Amino acid sequence: MGSALFDPLFGADRVAARLDDASWTAALVAVEVALSRAAAEHGIVPAAHAERIEAAAAELAVDPATLGMAAVEGGNPVIPLVRQLRAAVGDAGGSVHPGATSQDVMDTAAVLLVGWAGDVVLDDLRGAADAAARLAAQHRETPMIARTLGQHALPTTFGLVAAGWTAGLDRSRAALQRAVAALPVQFGGAAGTLAALHPHGPAVAESLARQLRLADAPPWHTERTRIGELAGALAVAAGACAKPATDVVLLAGTELGEVSEAAPGDSSSMPHKRNPIAAITARASARRAPGLAAILLAAADHEHQRAAGAWHAEWETLTDLLRATGGAAARLRVSLEGLTVHPDRMVANLALTSTETDTGHAADLVDRILAAR
Amino acid sequence: MGSALFDPLFGADRVAARLDDASWTAALVAVEVALSRAAAEHGIVPAAHAERIEAAAAELAVDPATLGMAAVEGGNPVIPLVRQLRAAVGDAGGSVHPGATSQDVMDTAAVLLVGWAGDVVLDDLRGAADAAARLAAQHRETPMIARTLGQHALPTTFGLVAAGWTAGLDRSRAALQRAVAALPVQFGGAAGTLAALHPHGPAVAESLARQLRLADAPPWHTERTRIGELAGALAVAAGACAKPATDVVLLAGTELGEVSEAAPGDSSSMPHKRNPIAAITARASARRAPGLAAILLAAADHEHQRAAGAWHAEWETLTDLLRATGGAAARLRVSLEGLTVHPDRMVANLALTSTETDTGHAADLVDRILAAR
Amino acid sequence: MGSALFDPLFGADRVAARLDDASWTAALVAVEVALSRAAAEHGIVPAAHAERIEAAAAELAVDPATLGMAAVEGGNPVIPLVRQLRAAVGDAGGSVHPGATSQDVMDTAAVLLVGWAGDVVLDDLRGAADAAARLAAQHRETPMIARTLGQHALPTTFGLVAAGWTAGLDRSRAALQRAVAALPVQFGGAAGTLAALHPHGPAVAESLARQLRLADAPPWHTERTRIGELAGALAVAAGACAKPATDVVLLAGTELGEVSEAAPGDSSSMPHKRNPIAAITARASARRAPGLAAILLAAADHEHQRAAGAWHAEWETLTDLLRATGGAAARLRVSLEGLTVHPDRMVANLALTSTETDTGHAADLVDRILAAR
Amino acid sequence: MGSALFDPLFGADRVAARLDDASWTAALVAVEVALSRAAAEHGIVPAAHAERIEAAAAELAVDPATLGMAAVEGGNPVIPLVRQLRAAVGDAGGSVHPGATSQDVMDTAAVLLVGWAGDVVLDDLRGAADAAARLAAQHRETPMIARTLGQHALPTTFGLVAAGWTAGLDRSRAALQRAVAALPVQFGGAAGTLAALHPHGPAVAESLARQLRLADAPPWHTERTRIGELAGALAVAAGACAKPATDVVLLAGTELGEVSEAAPGDSSSMPHKRNPIAAITARASARRAPGLAAILLAAADHEHQRAAGAWHAEWETLTDLLRATGGAAARLRVSLEGLTVHPDRMVANLALTSTETDTGHAADLVDRILAAR
Repeated sequence: MGSALFDPLFGADRVAARLDDASWTAALVAVEVALSRAAAEHGIVPAAHAERIEAAAAELAVDPATLGMAAVEGGNPVIPLVRQLRAAVGDAGGSVHPGATSQDVMDTAAVLLVGWAGDVVLDDLRGAADAAARLAAQHRETPMIARTLGQHALPTTFGLVAAGWTAGLDRSRAALQRAVAALPVQFGGAAGTLAALHPHGPAVAESLARQLRLADAPPWHTERTRIGELAGALAVAAGACAKPATDVVLLAGTELGEVSEAAPGDSSSMPHKRNPIAAITARASARRAPGLAAILLAAADHEHQRAAGAWHAEWETLTDLLRATGGAAARLRVSLEGLTVHPDRMVANLALTSTETDTGHAADLVDRILAAR
Repeated sequence: MGSALFDPLFGADRVAARLDDASWTAALVAVEVALSRAAAEHGIVPAAHAERIEAAAAELAVDPATLGMAAVEGGNPVIPLVRQLRAAVGDAGGSVHPGATSQDVMDTAAVLLVGWAGDVVLDDLRGAADAAARLAAQHRETPMIARTLGQHALPTTFGLVAAGWTAGLDRSRAALQRAVAALPVQFGGAAGTLAALHPHGPAVAESLARQLRLADAPPWHTERTRIGELAGALAVAAGACAKPATDVVLLAGTELGEVSEAAPGDSSSMPHKRNPIAAITARASARRAPGLAAILLAAADHEHQRAAGAWHAEWETLTDLLRATGGAAARLRVSLEGLTVHPDRMVANLALTSTETDTGHAADLVDRILAAR
Repeated sequence: MGSALFDPLFGADRVAARLDDASWTAALVAVEVALSRAAAEHGIVPAAHAERIEAAAAELAVDPATLGMAAVEGGNPVIPLVRQLRAAVGDAGGSVHPGATSQDVMDTAAVLLVGWAGDVVLDDLRGAADAAARLAAQHRETPMIARTLGQHALPTTFGLVAAGWTAGLDRSRAALQRAVAALPVQFGGAAGTLAALHPHGPAVAESLARQLRLADAPPWHTERTRIGELAGALAVAAGACAKPATDVVLLAGTELGEVSEAAPGDSSSMPHKRNPIAAITARASARRAPGLAAILLAAADHEHQRAAGAWHAEWETLTDLLRATGGAAARLRVSLEGLTVHPDRMVANLALTSTETDTGHAADLVDRILAAR
Repeated sequence: MGSALFDPLFGADRVAARLDDASWTAALVAVEVALSRAAAEHGIVPAAHAERIEAAAAELAVDPATLGMAAVEGGNPVIPLVRQLRAAVGDAGGSVHPGATSQDVMDTAAVLLVGWAGDVVLDDLRGAADAAARLAAQHRETPMIARTLGQHALPTTFGLVAAGWTAGLDRSRAALQRAVAALPVQFGGAAGTLAALHPHGPAVAESLARQLRLADAPPWHTERTRIGELAGALAVAAGACAKPATDVVLLAGTELGEVSEAAPGDSSSMPHKRNPIAAITARASARRAPGLAAILLAAADHEHQRAAGAWHAEWETLTDLLRATGGAAARLRVSLEGLTVHPDRMVANLALTSTETDTGHAADLVDRILAAR
């Protein structure tokens, strides 16, 4: 769930900073604070208690390692966190965690984290798409050979190639944005019935959602389609990064030489090497997304009213999938923002098999694709 | 891609009939016919030729096995199909396949198949959701114990359990419908540039889309986000089936005995057995979806202007994923439509740990979930 | 589970012929016959009955579609098959299926199928490895540039590249052979206790294994490590095919032009195209294996004494995985057996970045790798 | 790659301590030291240099974060590590990294890590198997009902159930041990030809292997079958843990109540709850293994002489897969070592459908399975 050694190379450092242990504990605390405030809005706990809880939470020293050790006994980190928070607020302790179950807090915290990390992923997807769109516009008429099944086919333009990258990145970003926004607050209580706060449960859920700027919804503790949709959207976005990254790696190959990265990795012993490291590491991260998504998609079969394993399997997998897709987007952005195009090499390669030079049809398509952004 | 021995058991027979070799060849032929007609609309081929092609196609005896053998040489079944169709129309042969490449026809045919098979999947998802909703309404106040992590928690109602099933099935059906509808016609020509018909390419694509009642879009030959989105949606829908199927299997267990299927599998040697076969086989199919979806999600890295393998890997995988999700939905529908609920057993089990009998909070949630349908 | 339209293109026709519905039913019948004979060996059923059962089975017209429809009721095709077989043997009916449960017959039949299909897969893996080894020997000193991260590095020889292919194919074939051979007969009776034939159960299992030339083992009805090992071995073998297939596609690219296939797919409109279709389709099949293997690896969590879904999910997945790996091996073999190497292009490409011509170190490694076969 | 918040709960803390950034850097340093010593054995670098390098390495302050940032430029952490090590040894700098390429060091370090972490995984698999075997021996005649498809079938004994767990854990441990031991040293130099040290390359590789107590083999930089085999073995072992963990969760269910864990998670609001948290978290970790294994199995298609992404995707995935399987084994061990069996509940449940009390056949099978350990 984060590695100082590997995250920078794989572009995951920015997103990982929003997914680390400290982020998780911050999110858990934020949910508990918002929950007490939401309950106070409806007179379920005293408003003064909610304020004391918020103040105490702001000062609370929550050590992830301590919380992690304490989580073993009850099966999740919420139980010891609630204990710690209650201890910190004295006689307001009864106003901590009103009507909630651990899953309410874990799920809502996960939704917060997805939002925080998702912003980074979406930003890098947009940055990569914008860079691709700029390349498309600049090179709308730059002729190059289209290659099908690895073989020269007919001429196209580099602009059209880059426009295709743009379209995929834009589509996948929009879908990811929808999937992130669709994740609502979780609030159902011990059995998902909102029994403890009856009849105020739905109203408290609504307040909680407003406090945390999340959508509201009936309890979805065992209805995990939204998690599956998010997993799918993240894997699709990773795939939308894999396509241009693969093209960059291939076009940067020594014999083709049609593009190069701004800061290629070099080699002390082999000075002619110009490794497109950003695209290479984007591909590496993208390769990890489908398997991680499959874990989440397979974890939909929650038993009864709380799954005995499928739920717990989501936590780290979701974190890792956000890191993988985020890393792919970040590194692709670096690759495309710094990409140097070599039209002379494109022309030279094109000439191997073609004398065609008209690029109007491709340029028209570029305009059409970019206009639809 | 279909098995007479296994399809009925796994509920895949109805959907498989729209995904078999004959369906594929019918779709390929339908695309070629529509393409000639679309080209005729724009004066690219004579209208009379398009009519002869349509008439010949209607009579054409396309043997999948023959086509399959002939596909080896060129790498896909479109090449020999075009040859056969041209031979059948004599001097109108030049009006077959105007401006197209094999991928245009394969991709558009796949989109047709997804639509045909998707209708069946969506219908069974709706049937299963409706059955779940009926159970939810009927049992909105039927008390049962909520079980968390396999242990008795607090009371809920069976209606609320079934309402959760409904919500997941409804959500995933709506998302699948969007993903299917988002799949457009593919038309880009040899290099994805629409060069051959310039400047009429986009107009022909639009006509082709209209003919086939599909959406129109710029060429997406290597921009596969829509395939990924479909894969994700199918896996999510399979997961939405897995959840109620898992609950049915557990609730039907001998000790719990809270539900039973209408036509349980029995055993000659063990007459007390009442195997919930429909739910069991729904679970089996649902288990296959995430791995199949991962194959499609991982196949986004199409090289250059036609992928050397990633594209080809889509064909059978997409077919199998539609069969898996379709089978899960069909069998779950059977399970839920015939489900017998045993309130007496629910009460008896509940009494093991609880004396609580108020079900108002759960019934309120049922109403809220069903009202949102 | 087989497609006349797609199997030849993907090289799956030979292996699919051993995995189709007819093969499954033949395997099921073979197990029932062997079981009666095994029981007869130990005096559990009359020898005359076993002979009549064998004779009747040889004449039995088992229609997969009929069996498939009848399988819905009880949950698997063994139940109606036993009924049909009993009907065919009159008063010897009681000697059909002695002491067995459906899973005994399904599992053992699956093991038979794995053996039948596995022979084809292993044969094609060996054929591909032998072709790679021949290329390695022929070209042990043929200089070419080694490419790392897509960039020219230092010289190697094509022989060393092909020797690496050989090593991977050989390793994976040996592991697959072990995994296939490790699959034993399944015989445990209704609860996996061999209760019905006590104390003769283990002896009957041993006889059954001998009859079917399979290994013997205690019941493994819910202990699926062997299935997982087979899944892993098949996916590894597919990966061992993907490596050379990927290299062939890249080396056959227009700019590199260092190899070409014997029967490349051509294009009517683009006569210069030389698509390495065999390698391309090998890659496509290989891409499908990891996702299919993951389904089987995830299906290890069989509940209690017979899984309610995880077991059923194995049947078609195992079949499809054998087809995918078998197809990859078959098409790679075609690719490598017909591969033309172009040393002149290798030298020309090498000269772009290197003047080094010594190949002795690479040739030494080739000899060492080939000597270890 | 490690989380203080989640690792203890998921049993991954012990294995994660051997897989963290510090372990990776320690392994990288260990390889460089061993490489200089191996080269010195063959007179390639001065023995005094090798000693100075070893001494300097022992004092070297390698900060993973610094190394991680510096890794971005060249594409992997070995390049800056070599630079740091060379700077630390002054004029012995030329004797650092003799004849090697970054992949040699990364791959060999990964193999070291697999060995270190593998020892923990294997130990916990053995501990879990031993606990299962003790349960099997103790309860070889403890009657319980066998459940098939969730329904009561016929009597078995708890000992036979636990013997089945043992068999799966033992099998998968033995296979994992073979897969770990099969991983050799990597040493091929820039192009995998051992050119730089010719003709001493193979001898240096052998010395390197001996220094690190690893197997020797020709360069396998793009021949990744061993990584695939390891991935398969880890996923199979996770599956072997999932089976007993699933059974424990089901048998611990309130209605069944046949087993309970030593330290079940409880709930302040629901005192009757006895959550089998160890088994639950073992299941959660096991669910993550197949998707992670699929990533590695799919990453076999290394292009040319160094893959542009597939190789890099292995590093974190391998780490996470070891954590997932290790966590599953560790938590299952806790579950089984502390498992309380409730024969009275087994008898009571059995009596619901059966009057059979003979357990001799099951006990015989227990003896046979345990004797084969």
